[in-house]
Amino acid sequence: MLALVLKEGGYSGRATGPAIKDAGDYLRLAELPVPVAGAGQVVIRLRMASVNPSDLHFIKGEYGQPRIKGAPAGFEGCGDVVQAGAGAEKLLGLRVAFVVSKGGSGAWAEYAMTDAATCIPLREDISDADGAAQIVNPLTAMAMVDLAAKDGEAFVISAATSQLGKLMIGLARDQGLKAIALVRRAGALAGLEALGAAAVLDITAPDFADRFAKASRAMKPRVFLDAVADQSAEQVFAAMPNGARWICYGNMGAAPPMLSQIGQLIFMDKKIEGFWLTRWMQNTAPAQQKEVISRVQARFADGRWKTDISARIPLAKGVPDLASATGLTDGKVLILG
Amino acid sequence: MLALVLKEGGYSGRATGPAIKDAGDYLRLAELPVPVAGAGQVVIRLRMASVNPSDLHFIKGEYGQPRIKGAPAGFEGCGDVVQAGAGAEKLLGLRVAFVVSKGGSGAWAEYAMTDAATCIPLREDISDADGAAQIVNPLTAMAMVDLAAKDGEAFVISAATSQLGKLMIGLARDQGLKAIALVRRAGALAGLEALGAAAVLDITAPDFADRFAKASRAMKPRVFLDAVADQSAEQVFAAMPNGARWICYGNMGAAPPMLSQIGQLIFMDKKIEGFWLTRWMQNTAPAQQKEVISRVQARFADGRWKTDISARIPLAKGVPDLASATGLTDGKVLILG
Repeated sequence: MLALVLKEGGYSGRATGPAIKDAGDYLRLAELPVPVAGAGQVVIRLRMASVNPSDLHFIKGEYGQPRIKGAPAGFEGCGDVVQAGAGAEKLLGLRVAFVVSKGGSGAWAEYAMTDAATCIPLREDISDADGAAQIVNPLTAMAMVDLAAKDGEAFVISAATSQLGKLMIGLARDQGLKAIALVRRAGALAGLEALGAAAVLDITAPDFADRFAKASRAMKPRVFLDAVADQSAEQVFAAMPNGARWICYGNMGAAPPMLSQIGQLIFMDKKIEGFWLTRWMQNTAPAQQKEVISRVQARFADGRWKTDISARIPLAKGVPDLASATGLTDGKVLILG
Repeated sequence: MLALVLKEGGYSGRATGPAIKDAGDYLRLAELPVPVAGAGQVVIRLRMASVNPSDLHFIKGEYGQPRIKGAPAGFEGCGDVVQAGAGAEKLLGLRVAFVVSKGGSGAWAEYAMTDAATCIPLREDISDADGAAQIVNPLTAMAMVDLAAKDGEAFVISAATSQLGKLMIGLARDQGLKAIALVRRAGALAGLEALGAAAVLDITAPDFADRFAKASRAMKPRVFLDAVADQSAEQVFAAMPNGARWICYGNMGAAPPMLSQIGQLIFMDKKIEGFWLTRWMQNTAPAQQKEVISRVQARFADGRWKTDISARIPLAKGVPDLASATGLTDGKVLILG
């Protein structure tokens, strides 16, 4: 089978963010044997795989798990189950969304392998494109908005034009929550307001600090869901009220932040923490995960959520085309199996 | 009455740490009327007041509550109750340890005023010197070690030669916990080992990083009780295992830290937070506070804890003598009423 495989193993030891200049620095196209499903595993003939920021962090060696040299990259996709190991037979022939579990074989390949437990059979009314991005972003959005909702009715999100940002804004609107969306260009304001953000603020605007302080005083957000983690994010956190939680789930910032307000941790009960979907899955009971997943599918099926696609790249063109495609804003890149 | 009163009100807007060059920059000696106790309040004829780092942060306008210009400074002391408002009569004539509550009148004065609820009648076998430092440091030590004990048997403390550090080391030893004590001079190692620290490491030594990494691997501390919050503290936190919590309770560092390892928040479930005794008191049930206070008195009474005194300053000499006295290491400064 054809696959985009990792050129290096382990970690790079760097933290340079998800941007890539040339996918050929990290990946090469290779011909590999089709994987074989063990007990509890399935092999999936890929329809489409998604390209998430976590994939880009991973191929660069900057993610929370080590690379395996020569193994296919890609964490998430959808396709048809063509092989099922012992105990996984009921998935055979089904179209599923999946993420690649530990010990599996990556999604950026004609065939992927993963634990049956990570597979979600797809309703017919879900497109392949939506199916390929059904787990990582949607579950992250659901889990993080649930987290924010426990701490008040308003919360702040950075990098709000991301697919994940848009999912969270729609979710907040439908749950009667106020999402304060931070963006980096004035052109993005109207679109996110239309999606239902309570406020959209351009963090690069000269009057951003005043505008954010005003919104923070009015809506009292206690949770900051942040994908950037740079100095501007630290300033946002510093302007939030007593008890604020800065929850980092990404590290897209060009440089790490300095903690200018240690006193706020002490006197204002502020906290800095992280969110990782993998840990959420480990710590969340299967029944609750199923409930969240059925809410996810219902939202895609009836159109409340959709995946905006900015590029579709055939597997064979992944190395030359991936870098420029991931440079586009406002949509997800899919790899076609 | 004589009192050391604040020269400025409100906050300074700076964060320069607890060191002072000249107490006259912040305090002046004044003659004030003796305060009058309202309902639920008492007036205390001061025996001795303590000088805590929080007092120094406060007089500089860098603490979690605003200064009141012309009001006496000083958060903690011991003395005799000479006036009691309605409902507080049972304290009249008793020798008590106290902290000054909101709306009270500071401890660096011949007479202090506070809520009766903050007063702890002192057992006869507690000296005035121990009584003057009976609440802030001992309760902080008890509360923070209890917090650490919930997260494993080992924890790290910075600025471990402080009075608070020594209290925590003794407490850890008696509870079978391993305190990894960080100090800034080789001369402090033996003393803290004798007190019962599981390891004492000089953070300024060239091989500190290796030694700490080794201790961290061996003992797996999950909690870092930190009074410094500078870059070296950040490096300690970065070298701690999965799930580590960096709990800042002081801000003695010369410069704020940069967060070099955002990925650890995400992938290793690390957290950064703060501890403030005032919040602990607000959030802890009175019965539980009483239990902790009786453990504190028992430890002072039988000698497991004692307050090392480095200087005793008469109230009238506070302005000229305070700065040099607080520059001494290894002991608490007391102000005599």
